[in-house]
Amino acid sequence: MLDREGDRIRVAFQGEHGAYSEEAAYAFFGESITTQPCVTLKEAFQVTEMESVSFGVVPAENSLEGTINQTYDLLLQSPLQISGEIKIRINHCLLGFPGTKLRELTKVYSHPQALAQCRGFLDTLQASVEPAYDTAGSAKMIRDRGLRNAAAIASERAAKLYGLDILRRDIEDDSENYTRFFVVGKNDAAPTGKDKTSIVFGTKHDPGSLHRALSELAIRGINLTKIESRPIRGTPWEYHFFVDFEGHRNDQSCSDALRVLASSTTFVKILGSYPESA
Amino acid sequence: MLDREGDRIRVAFQGEHGAYSEEAAYAFFGESITTQPCVTLKEAFQVTEMESVSFGVVPAENSLEGTINQTYDLLLQSPLQISGEIKIRINHCLLGFPGTKLRELTKVYSHPQALAQCRGFLDTLQASVEPAYDTAGSAKMIRDRGLRNAAAIASERAAKLYGLDILRRDIEDDSENYTRFFVVGKNDAAPTGKDKTSIVFGTKHDPGSLHRALSELAIRGINLTKIESRPIRGTPWEYHFFVDFEGHRNDQSCSDALRVLASSTTFVKILGSYPESA
Repeated sequence: MLDREGDRIRVAFQGEHGAYSEEAAYAFFGESITTQPCVTLKEAFQVTEMESVSFGVVPAENSLEGTINQTYDLLLQSPLQISGEIKIRINHCLLGFPGTKLRELTKVYSHPQALAQCRGFLDTLQASVEPAYDTAGSAKMIRDRGLRNAAAIASERAAKLYGLDILRRDIEDDSENYTRFFVVGKNDAAPTGKDKTSIVFGTKHDPGSLHRALSELAIRGINLTKIESRPIRGTPWEYHFFVDFEGHRNDQSCSDALRVLASSTTFVKILGSYPESA
Repeated sequence: MLDREGDRIRVAFQGEHGAYSEEAAYAFFGESITTQPCVTLKEAFQVTEMESVSFGVVPAENSLEGTINQTYDLLLQSPLQISGEIKIRINHCLLGFPGTKLRELTKVYSHPQALAQCRGFLDTLQASVEPAYDTAGSAKMIRDRGLRNAAAIASERAAKLYGLDILRRDIEDDSENYTRFFVVGKNDAAPTGKDKTSIVFGTKHDPGSLHRALSELAIRGINLTKIESRPIRGTPWEYHFFVDFEGHRNDQSCSDALRVLASSTTFVKILGSYPESA
């Protein structure tokens, strides 16, 4: 995929090469992109604001763990817009040097969420469980340090990238493990007829204020797909509401609802409209 | 505080002695309780179901990080009821052996959330940042292993318990760092006149179904204080809604709303009514 200068488009993600976010980027754009690893989610947003980077791919929610709060906090502050969404199945693999025996493992490294999602399998090993910042980063560390009695929990792509073997596949406790990612960029997407819109708004702390805000969507037959209250930083126990609904902000019913919301809430920020993923 | 047999009541919490959850337990019940550390949140719930343990104290949400998803998932499954809430200010301290110099530190251990909340301070050190399962557990490890060039981020109570010095106080980036804890037990609480109720319900995926559910609260003047959609395990992209509102489930308006909700949603579970904390 090429940009206006005829170069491959550049897509930022958080993590090391082989991270699930990078897998989501390839799934969304195809293989002919250049991916750019970032240390933090904040950095992924900042890098995506640069001219040379077209998009960022950031995790929004996981079907087991719930919302990635930091992504929503960054969306609230960022000038970037959501221009796409993609859901991918998370398939955790146990990676190690070729020939590593499961019964000889002394340590298993991964991100705490991945470790928690593989608790049942890990309980069958004698190894201690070592939290790390990153799934793919754990695989890289095992390769770089030549740890032959250790393994990492990461993706199949991480195994290929770091020359490790897949010691065991599908080690997660619950196979219904999906992560939804947002594609963020300088603009959101044009209407396709099957779109979603993400917004955030604030309401006064009085009975029915959220209900009145949601009424503006309900009376227009707009289907809500996600809602979440988030504490406002610096103002404990006051909340913003992050809401996803079906429709494009340019659709008549949505744009009517958004106009009324803007006057009946303390503020509304449209995070973007984008094609609904399968 | 004594139970019916005249023994000190026993209160379960997740973490090592010195954890913020234990601090919340003491803040709620006073100092004359016996606290029981548990390795996981799930274990804290299981232990609290036992006759010999009166209550559990579990984190519900943090003003910076948001909801503790696992607590809500456990509440959904557990026979325990919420019988209280308490909010405490999280004051992170840097702990180490007496005489440890900040400039000589090579490693700082703590839970990833605590490390993230102290990023600004950590950037002023030369030390590497080491994720661990636990704040208080990191302090215990430094003491047990005699690590003299390392420090832990944990509470003041952890410093006292493990005989470590407070090398630096109030190292969090954002002072508006509060955590709200639930007190869970075999029953919820009697009405006091200033109560809250937590419920979870499911709705069909159709436009306005959440709005109709919230209408039952709004038309009765019941104030919502928190709402969150959570993916249903095993059914990706269908949601439960966790809602907190002001009032006791025995109040006329609340019990009317709950009765109507039970018939207009796919299910309602009342997680408990309890006195509102300051």
